[in-house]
Amino acid sequence: MYFDETICAPATIAGTGAVSLIRLSGPESLKIADKVLQTIKGTLEETPGYRLKFCKVYSPDGTLLDEVLASVFHAPHSYTGEDSVEITCHASAYIVDSILQLLCAAGARMAGPGEFTQRAFVNGKMDLAQAEAVADVIASQSASSHKIAMNQLKGSFSKELKSMRDEMLKIVSLMELELDFSEEEVEFADRTALLELLEATDRHCRRLADSFKLGNAIKNGIPVTIAGATNTGKSTLLNALLGEERAIVSDIAGTTRDTIEETLNIGGTLFRFIDTAGIRGTEETIEKIGIERTFKKVSEAQVILAMTDVSLDEASFAVEVQSLLDLIKPGQHAIFLLNKCDKVANLGVNKNVNHINNIVKSPVIQISARNLEGIDELRAKLAQFASKLLSESDETLVTNLRHAQELSETSVALERAIDGMASSLPSDLVAQDIREAIYHLGTIVGEISTDEVLGNIFKNFCIGK
Amino acid sequence: MYFDETICAPATIAGTGAVSLIRLSGPESLKIADKVLQTIKGTLEETPGYRLKFCKVYSPDGTLLDEVLASVFHAPHSYTGEDSVEITCHASAYIVDSILQLLCAAGARMAGPGEFTQRAFVNGKMDLAQAEAVADVIASQSASSHKIAMNQLKGSFSKELKSMRDEMLKIVSLMELELDFSEEEVEFADRTALLELLEATDRHCRRLADSFKLGNAIKNGIPVTIAGATNTGKSTLLNALLGEERAIVSDIAGTTRDTIEETLNIGGTLFRFIDTAGIRGTEETIEKIGIERTFKKVSEAQVILAMTDVSLDEASFAVEVQSLLDLIKPGQHAIFLLNKCDKVANLGVNKNVNHINNIVKSPVIQISARNLEGIDELRAKLAQFASKLLSESDETLVTNLRHAQELSETSVALERAIDGMASSLPSDLVAQDIREAIYHLGTIVGEISTDEVLGNIFKNFCIGK
Repeated sequence: MYFDETICAPATIAGTGAVSLIRLSGPESLKIADKVLQTIKGTLEETPGYRLKFCKVYSPDGTLLDEVLASVFHAPHSYTGEDSVEITCHASAYIVDSILQLLCAAGARMAGPGEFTQRAFVNGKMDLAQAEAVADVIASQSASSHKIAMNQLKGSFSKELKSMRDEMLKIVSLMELELDFSEEEVEFADRTALLELLEATDRHCRRLADSFKLGNAIKNGIPVTIAGATNTGKSTLLNALLGEERAIVSDIAGTTRDTIEETLNIGGTLFRFIDTAGIRGTEETIEKIGIERTFKKVSEAQVILAMTDVSLDEASFAVEVQSLLDLIKPGQHAIFLLNKCDKVANLGVNKNVNHINNIVKSPVIQISARNLEGIDELRAKLAQFASKLLSESDETLVTNLRHAQELSETSVALERAIDGMASSLPSDLVAQDIREAIYHLGTIVGEISTDEVLGNIFKNFCIGK
Repeated sequence: MYFDETICAPATIAGTGAVSLIRLSGPESLKIADKVLQTIKGTLEETPGYRLKFCKVYSPDGTLLDEVLASVFHAPHSYTGEDSVEITCHASAYIVDSILQLLCAAGARMAGPGEFTQRAFVNGKMDLAQAEAVADVIASQSASSHKIAMNQLKGSFSKELKSMRDEMLKIVSLMELELDFSEEEVEFADRTALLELLEATDRHCRRLADSFKLGNAIKNGIPVTIAGATNTGKSTLLNALLGEERAIVSDIAGTTRDTIEETLNIGGTLFRFIDTAGIRGTEETIEKIGIERTFKKVSEAQVILAMTDVSLDEASFAVEVQSLLDLIKPGQHAIFLLNKCDKVANLGVNKNVNHINNIVKSPVIQISARNLEGIDELRAKLAQFASKLLSESDETLVTNLRHAQELSETSVALERAIDGMASSLPSDLVAQDIREAIYHLGTIVGEISTDEVLGNIFKNFCIGK
């Protein structure tokens, strides 16, 4: 039913750019475009695909609205797989609105969010994981996140899932075949090989599901918490990091009111810096409660920038270092920063420097956030950390929460099947669990999909995509 | 020299749209595009004009950056008149930046503001007035301002100027021919016909220069000042007007701090509403100074919404009406509003209503800003005023300050020539004044232009246009 309708939408934001692009897709797009756009010769319907036509658009009162370029696409050779026209007009909100009104008056309707990509999916131009990657490609702000999204768009993730699914389908078919011959007690599927395969697939699913944490970090920024006592210069550091970089800087409203988050692109990877409230080495109850929030942010971080003030007296410094060490959990990456190095002479023989180098195993960098000293070294260290993180996980990274959840569900079903097989459950029950695993894998690429699932996915797209 | 370079720029704003468009223009554009974009078959250079090619773009490290569509244009059949390529890619800032970097690495350079249109002008694709209209078309927010800009883009304004210029050139040539035969005292140019023509041209220039006030009002919004005593409900009216309208609403920082300006599209024409400080009928010196600003805004307005409070006692009401009447200058259009009609019973026999209807010649509308009563009638009245204004000036409207100034200069030179002719000045002096008038007319369409003038015009364009 759905496919009878021709949809239109702006594919660019009307603003102060030079041109705007309007998309039209559906069975009537060429006919509708011919009603609205006046070519110099011939009709758009007769124009072969992948051609541009110069056209004039007139208002209903006969005045010239704009001169535009129309790109003609014939099904199935278009983004959506349907007949399509793309109209490039001047970037005036008035013109874009007027053309959309004319298209709607001629029989099109305004598209919903993601409706073009949804049609591309339904018409078999891409699977669901690829369609979701389109949104990720558009949103990607760094080389790393772009690479992951692009891989997914190219379909390598989908292929990986498909091969797992095919293997399991083969097994379950054999098991179900056995059931047909149940009275004869044959075993078409070798139980040992089967168990191994299920276990391997389970490990694969688990790994993919677990990669979401990293994939998500790369997509939204690797969380880096700046921790340290008040007045250590944490905000100065944040400004020093941001000030040097002309890359994307944005404010993200944190869940905790007092936490400031800023994203920064370092060496092609997005980092999400979290500036926290100061920590004090104190035993006072009230202050302890006050810094709980900071502890929480620190525990969520993948990297902790542990900031100390090298100009403190030895006793206070030692307390500060210890309280920072207490914060760091196993598996967390920490970089200790000795700030205010500009205030201290002869750092080589400084007792605080010696102290920290003796008791801290993480890298220690001497900086002066105020004078922008040591900042480059810190950035290099962070870039190095990111490249290590990326190289360790050279395999597919899952960046989409829905995919991660479906992979976990797959894994749960597989583990039930494995347990069942170990405790010699009847084959039909085991087969049912494998079928469930296959189902969950299938929902990722959209081989199995419901309107609700599709609706949820595409509602997060922008209009015009 | 300039033309040797191939320029590139984004033509859409990188944001959250679906696609972005990158423009490439200049002698090397097809070669450069072929270095950056990988077609499936053939090169872009060999591709005929007005064709689309599906291409892949790879990062220097060999990873796929994006899949794009390239539109191919061969000189002179393009916007700029040069070889051009337009690249439609996914709307990610990362992808757009990366493609621009690749294009620059392959030999292009980033375009300056308006450089594409400047090239179109230099290559004779449009004259200067048309080039300036491009910016106006993009900026137009209403049907009326769009229509004016579009007329200018189509070249009707340019044609009007050209015919005036041609007439004057004919005259001045004849006059200069006479000088060559000065000893024979011939008169090739009929002095009476010549004077009539100069006077007609002068009137035409004056009218065009004067039309700037209206043209500018239509472009930036017809100024409507809401005047009235404090507490009459002026801001409530502004909100009532804005609240009902889903059209473009924007805040314009006024020159006077306390004045709020909002633009609103009513019936296809942009109005700029100015909410002023309250006026009181008082003789106190300090208060008088305080409302000077309001007086200034009122004097600049094309329409005054004179607001009164019908619920006042008769004496106060009469003072209020009189102080509003004192504000209105001849030629200004006023609409009197009787606000707070919801507070008063039996309006038909109300003495304030009778009073205002007796002494005010402008239209009077009974409203309740709070209850949104009478607002539609006010909007209809404003739309009617706009359409009257537009129909009265069915001729060309000048919307560009530079054009208005050049037209005034033309007129000044013409008047000198007319005076000179009346006082029988030597023909060569008169001819010099006419030459100056021709010069000023020529600068509008760019037949005469300096780098400085061009620089000033195009620096206000956006990048990518």
